[in-house]
Amino acid sequence: MRVLQLTDDYGIDKLQLVEQDRPKPGHGEILIALKHASLNYRDLATISGFMGKLPAPFIPLSDAAGEVVEVGEGVTRFKAGDKVCPGFFPTWLSGPPTQAVLSRALGGSLNGVACEYICLPQTGASLVPKNLSLAEASTLPCAGLTAWRALVVEGDIKAGDTVLVQGTGGVSIFALQFAKAAGARVIATSSSDEKLEQARKLGADETINYKSTPKWGKEARRLTGGLGVDHVVEVGGAGTLEESLQATRVNGHIAMIGILSGLSSNLSMAAVFSNNLRIKGISVGSIAQFEEMSRAIEANDLHPVIDCHFPFEKTGDALAHMQAGKHLGKVVIDIA
Amino acid sequence: MRVLQLTDDYGIDKLQLVEQDRPKPGHGEILIALKHASLNYRDLATISGFMGKLPAPFIPLSDAAGEVVEVGEGVTRFKAGDKVCPGFFPTWLSGPPTQAVLSRALGGSLNGVACEYICLPQTGASLVPKNLSLAEASTLPCAGLTAWRALVVEGDIKAGDTVLVQGTGGVSIFALQFAKAAGARVIATSSSDEKLEQARKLGADETINYKSTPKWGKEARRLTGGLGVDHVVEVGGAGTLEESLQATRVNGHIAMIGILSGLSSNLSMAAVFSNNLRIKGISVGSIAQFEEMSRAIEANDLHPVIDCHFPFEKTGDALAHMQAGKHLGKVVIDIA
Amino acid sequence: MRVLQLTDDYGIDKLQLVEQDRPKPGHGEILIALKHASLNYRDLATISGFMGKLPAPFIPLSDAAGEVVEVGEGVTRFKAGDKVCPGFFPTWLSGPPTQAVLSRALGGSLNGVACEYICLPQTGASLVPKNLSLAEASTLPCAGLTAWRALVVEGDIKAGDTVLVQGTGGVSIFALQFAKAAGARVIATSSSDEKLEQARKLGADETINYKSTPKWGKEARRLTGGLGVDHVVEVGGAGTLEESLQATRVNGHIAMIGILSGLSSNLSMAAVFSNNLRIKGISVGSIAQFEEMSRAIEANDLHPVIDCHFPFEKTGDALAHMQAGKHLGKVVIDIA
Amino acid sequence: MRVLQLTDDYGIDKLQLVEQDRPKPGHGEILIALKHASLNYRDLATISGFMGKLPAPFIPLSDAAGEVVEVGEGVTRFKAGDKVCPGFFPTWLSGPPTQAVLSRALGGSLNGVACEYICLPQTGASLVPKNLSLAEASTLPCAGLTAWRALVVEGDIKAGDTVLVQGTGGVSIFALQFAKAAGARVIATSSSDEKLEQARKLGADETINYKSTPKWGKEARRLTGGLGVDHVVEVGGAGTLEESLQATRVNGHIAMIGILSGLSSNLSMAAVFSNNLRIKGISVGSIAQFEEMSRAIEANDLHPVIDCHFPFEKTGDALAHMQAGKHLGKVVIDIA
Repeated sequence: MRVLQLTDDYGIDKLQLVEQDRPKPGHGEILIALKHASLNYRDLATISGFMGKLPAPFIPLSDAAGEVVEVGEGVTRFKAGDKVCPGFFPTWLSGPPTQAVLSRALGGSLNGVACEYICLPQTGASLVPKNLSLAEASTLPCAGLTAWRALVVEGDIKAGDTVLVQGTGGVSIFALQFAKAAGARVIATSSSDEKLEQARKLGADETINYKSTPKWGKEARRLTGGLGVDHVVEVGGAGTLEESLQATRVNGHIAMIGILSGLSSNLSMAAVFSNNLRIKGISVGSIAQFEEMSRAIEANDLHPVIDCHFPFEKTGDALAHMQAGKHLGKVVIDIA
Repeated sequence: MRVLQLTDDYGIDKLQLVEQDRPKPGHGEILIALKHASLNYRDLATISGFMGKLPAPFIPLSDAAGEVVEVGEGVTRFKAGDKVCPGFFPTWLSGPPTQAVLSRALGGSLNGVACEYICLPQTGASLVPKNLSLAEASTLPCAGLTAWRALVVEGDIKAGDTVLVQGTGGVSIFALQFAKAAGARVIATSSSDEKLEQARKLGADETINYKSTPKWGKEARRLTGGLGVDHVVEVGGAGTLEESLQATRVNGHIAMIGILSGLSSNLSMAAVFSNNLRIKGISVGSIAQFEEMSRAIEANDLHPVIDCHFPFEKTGDALAHMQAGKHLGKVVIDIA
Repeated sequence: MRVLQLTDDYGIDKLQLVEQDRPKPGHGEILIALKHASLNYRDLATISGFMGKLPAPFIPLSDAAGEVVEVGEGVTRFKAGDKVCPGFFPTWLSGPPTQAVLSRALGGSLNGVACEYICLPQTGASLVPKNLSLAEASTLPCAGLTAWRALVVEGDIKAGDTVLVQGTGGVSIFALQFAKAAGARVIATSSSDEKLEQARKLGADETINYKSTPKWGKEARRLTGGLGVDHVVEVGGAGTLEESLQATRVNGHIAMIGILSGLSSNLSMAAVFSNNLRIKGISVGSIAQFEEMSRAIEANDLHPVIDCHFPFEKTGDALAHMQAGKHLGKVVIDIA
Repeated sequence: MRVLQLTDDYGIDKLQLVEQDRPKPGHGEILIALKHASLNYRDLATISGFMGKLPAPFIPLSDAAGEVVEVGEGVTRFKAGDKVCPGFFPTWLSGPPTQAVLSRALGGSLNGVACEYICLPQTGASLVPKNLSLAEASTLPCAGLTAWRALVVEGDIKAGDTVLVQGTGGVSIFALQFAKAAGARVIATSSSDEKLEQARKLGADETINYKSTPKWGKEARRLTGGLGVDHVVEVGGAGTLEESLQATRVNGHIAMIGILSGLSSNLSMAAVFSNNLRIKGISVGSIAQFEEMSRAIEANDLHPVIDCHFPFEKTGDALAHMQAGKHLGKVVIDIA
C-alpha cells in the first residue's frame, strides 16, 4: 500500500510517498481501506515539526473515511463493507477527556491516516452519517467534531443563542452549520467580503469584516442589542482573544480551539471576572460524541463544505493551499 | 372594565361577564390592557372546580398578551406602549422552581387574565417576541413555556435527538415546533389521520395513529432503529405512560406534564430502573425562561398554531370547543 | 480452580461447587485471583431464576476483589500484584449508559465472580481504594457504585442537602456514608429501632421507624421544616414510592434503584407534576465513576460496613442470611 | 444614625463618620439595624477610587449582618427580629447572572453597609445561618458566597476532588472550609509557614510555601500523583495564573476571582487548549445560592474564621490592617 511519511526531517517538502505492506487486523481490530482524508491546520504544525517528538517514521493526518475490508477475531461492532471514520482520539470512547485518552491521537502521538490502509481497535472508529459521501465524511473526525463538542457538548447551545464564528476555516464553517441546525443566530467574521458573502449563503445572519472593523468585538455586541454573544468559537488565538472578550455576554462562553495559537495571549482578567465569562479549552471529542454528531448531520441533512480535492500524491500542494489561507471549508485528499 | 368571573359556584355555565373598576398600578407595578387570551386544559379543570379552593370571586385563565398602558412609581423595566405577556407564575423570575413561586399562579391561586386590564409587578411580565401578533403571543405563557422548559431547560435537547409528542394539543404542537427548530426529529401520535397529516405539515418526521397502533411505544422504538426516543413529552397521563416507557431509550427522558392527569398511573418500575429512565415533572417555567424562548421564537420566526378565535363574551363556547378535543393548536379569546 | 455454579435448575440449593481449569488471559486481558465476593439482593433474584435466561452453566455474583496474577499481551493498565475490583458492567468505561454496555453484566448476562480466578479485559477492572482491605473492597462494584452514582453523578449532591435512605441494606448504608462525606444531612428509615441506632452511629442525623410511623413521608417532610428532602434513595420499590413522593421537595430527586422491585407501583402523577419531581432509574455505574468513588473513599477514609463473613463453600447460607433481612451492611464471601 | 462615607475625594483617610436620618422602609422593604460588617479587598479598591465613578456621597462596604427592626407594607418574607444579611447583589435572586443584576452591588454602584441602618427590598436579604453569631454572619455575603459559588455552583465539587486555594484571605479560607465539608482534599499555598500551619489546622491536607517553592504549580501536580488538581480558586490574578495552569488537571476548573487582579495576565493558550481547561469568572452569587450556602453551614456547623474586630469608628485602621496582608480570615467591624 501507499503511505505518506516523514522519516528524519520535518517540512512539507520532506513528505515521501512510499510503499509498505498492508497491515493485518489483530484481535478486536478492523482493517479500513481509506478513500479520502482531509486537512487541518494542526497537520501543518505537525509536519513542520512544531509539535515536538513524533513517531519515526511518521505518517501524518488525522481525518479520513473509508471502508472496512477485514475484521479481526472478536469484532462485533463492524463488518466488511461498513463505511467508517477513524476516531481522532481512538481510545476516547465516551465521557470527559483524560490525560490518557488525549495522549493518543492519530497523526500526532500515533501514526495517522495518510495511507491506503489502517488497522484500529473496533472501538476506535464510527459509522459515517448515511447522507454523506466518503469525501464529505473524511472532514468530520477533527474539524467537525471539534465544532460539535464546542457548541453542543460544552456549550449546551440552544435555539435563540447567538454564536460568533471567526473566519471561514473548517471548524468555523462546521460551527456555523451546527449552530444554524440548532436554531441559533450566527455572526461570522472574515477579512474577505467575498467569504462573508459565502458565509451568508451558508446561513450566517450577520457578518463583520474584521479588516474594515478591527474593533469587531464591540460590533458583535452591537449586533446583539448590547447584550453580547452567547458563544465564541475562538480559533484565532493570541490575535483575537481580546476582541472575543469584548463580544461575549455576561456568563457567556468562549470555546478556545486551535493548535496553532500556541503562543501566549494577553488575558484581560477584569473582563473574565466582571462578566463572569467561561473560557473552555476544546480538543476534538469522543467516539460517542462523534456518533451524536452523526445523528444530527443525518437528521438535518447537513453537508460539510469542501473547498477542493487534491490527489494523494499532491498532498504537499494541498497543504500549501491551506497554508495560503485561500480556502473556505475543507481541503480533501483523494487517497484511493 | 369587563371581567369574566365565577362567584359562588363552579362550571363553564357559571361564568359571568361583569363590569369592574380598572385597577391602578402601585409602586413597581404595570397596568396591562389585555388584548387576547388563550385556553389550556387547566382552565377547564379550574373552572369545573377540580383544583380545590380558589379566590372568590375568581377570574380564570392564565395566558394572555396586551399592551402596557400605565406604569407605577419606580418602574424601569417597561414603559407605556410595550407589548407584554403576564408571567404564568409572576414571582418565578429565574432559577429552579420553589414551593413559594409555584404557589402563585395566574388563573389559579391568583386571579387570572379573563379581564380587560391587569396590574402586575414589573418583574412578573415579559416583552412579547417581536415577530408575533398579540393573538399569537397570548398562547405562550403556559403552553409555549411548558414545551420549552420540557425540551430545552430540563431536556437539554440537541440536534439529532428524537422527540415523541402526544396528540396535537397546545403543548404538543409547541414541542413539535421547538424540537424542529433545535434540529431534532419528531414522532407525533394522534387518533386522527387528518391531524397527523397536519403534524407532518408542521414538521413531524414520523406519525403514529394510536388507534390503529395501540402499541405505539413499540412502534416509536422501531422508528428509531430499536434505540428508543430521547424525549417523550408526556401529556396523556395515566393512559399513556406505559407506552411512553416502552418508547424511551436507555437514559432517556420523559417530561411529565398535564394538570388533568391527576389520577394515578401504573408505573413499571422495572422499566424505569433497567433502562435508567428519567421522569421529570414540569409545570410551566420562569420569566427568564420565557425570555429565552422568545429569543428562539424570533431567531427562527416560529409562529404558534392557532385553531380559532372566540369573542370575549363567548369564552364559555371556546372552553366547550376545547373540551370537545376537535382543535389543533390553540384556542384564542379576543378580549379587546 | 473452585467455581460455584448453577447448571440446569435455579435456587440457592442448586448451587454446586465444582472444579474447573484456571483461565488464561488473552490479548489485552488480565487474570485476577479473587479473594472476596459480596452479596446483593440481585444475586438472590438471579439464582432464584427471576431474571430470565442466563448463561448455562451459570456462575453467579457480581461484586468481588482480588489480585492481578497474570497479564496478557498488550496490557498496560495493570501489572501482577495490583489489587483490583472487576467492573459490574465491564464494558461501561465512561460517559452515560447505553443499551450495549448495560446488556453485559457480571453475574447476569455474563458469568460472575463466584470463582477463584477470572479473566477480564484490562479496561473492565479498577484499582481498589488504597485504604481498604480486599474484603471491604469486594462490596463496592454494585452496592457502593450504585449509591455513588445515585447521589453524586445523577443527584449532584451538595453540602447542606438532605438525603433520605430506606432501610439498612448495602446500597442504603453506602448512600448514608457518601451523603455524610459530602456534607449532607441524612434521614434513615427502618423497621428496627436497633438498626436505626446503628444508622445514627454511622452518621444519620434523623431516623424514622416506618413501623411505628407508617406515614414516614410526611414525617420526613416535617424533619426538614416542611420543605421536603432533596434526594430519596428509593430501594423499596412498590411499597415505598408513595411515601417517597410525599417526602420529596419541589424539584427534588428520587433515585429509583433495586432489582427486586420489578412489580409495578402506583405512581401519583399529580405529585410528580405539581412538585416538579425528578425520578431517575439507576443501575450501577461506569469504570470511570468507580474510580471517582475510590478517590472519595480514600480522601475521607470511608470503610464499607460489613455485616459478616461466610466461607466460599457456605455461599448458600450467606444468601439465606441476606434473604432473612437480618443484616446491616454487606455480607462477604471469603473465596480464598 | 452613624454613616461612614466619602464625599468628594477617594482614600482611606477621606472616610468621614457622619450623622444621618434613619431611613424608612417603603412598600415591600425591610429596615435592618446592622450590627457587624466585614471587609474585602474590593472595599480597598473602591475606597481608593480604582473602581470608577460611584454614588456621591458614597457609603462603602458590602458585607454585613443585622436585625430586621421594621417592615414596610406588603412584606411577607421577614418580620421584625429576624437576623439577616443584605445580599451583595440585592436584585440577583436566583438563576444565572445577568448584566442587570451584576450592575447593582452594595458598596459599589449602590451605597453600602457602613451605616447603622439600611432599607432593602425584602427579596434582597436572607436569614443568617442559625449556628452563627451576627459577627460571623457578616463575613458571608461576598467572601463566603464567592467561595461557595466557585466550588459548588460552578465547580460541581464532589467528594474526592482536590482543590487548590491560594493564600489565606477570606475567600480562600471559606473555599478551604467548603471543600473539606464536601469531602474534598485541599492544597493550600502561602508565603508564610505560620499561616500554612493554621491552614492545616482548618483542614488543609497539603501545603506549599510559594516563596520557597516558586514553581508551586508543578508541586501541586506532584501532590496529586501527577494528575493535577480538579479546582483552583484563583484569587491572585496576574501573578499566579501561570502556575495555576500548571497545577490543573485535564478538563479541570480554574475559578477566576478577585477585583484587584484587574491587570492583564499572560495566558498560555496552549495549556488551556491542550488540557481542555475551564476558566470561569466568578463574582459573588445570588440570594438563592446564599440560602443553599447557609444550609451547608448549618448542616456542617461551619464557622467563618475571624481575624480580628475593629470598632466602627476605626474602620480606616481595619482597612489598613487588611491592606498590610497580616490577617488570616476576615476582618470584622463592630457597627453597633
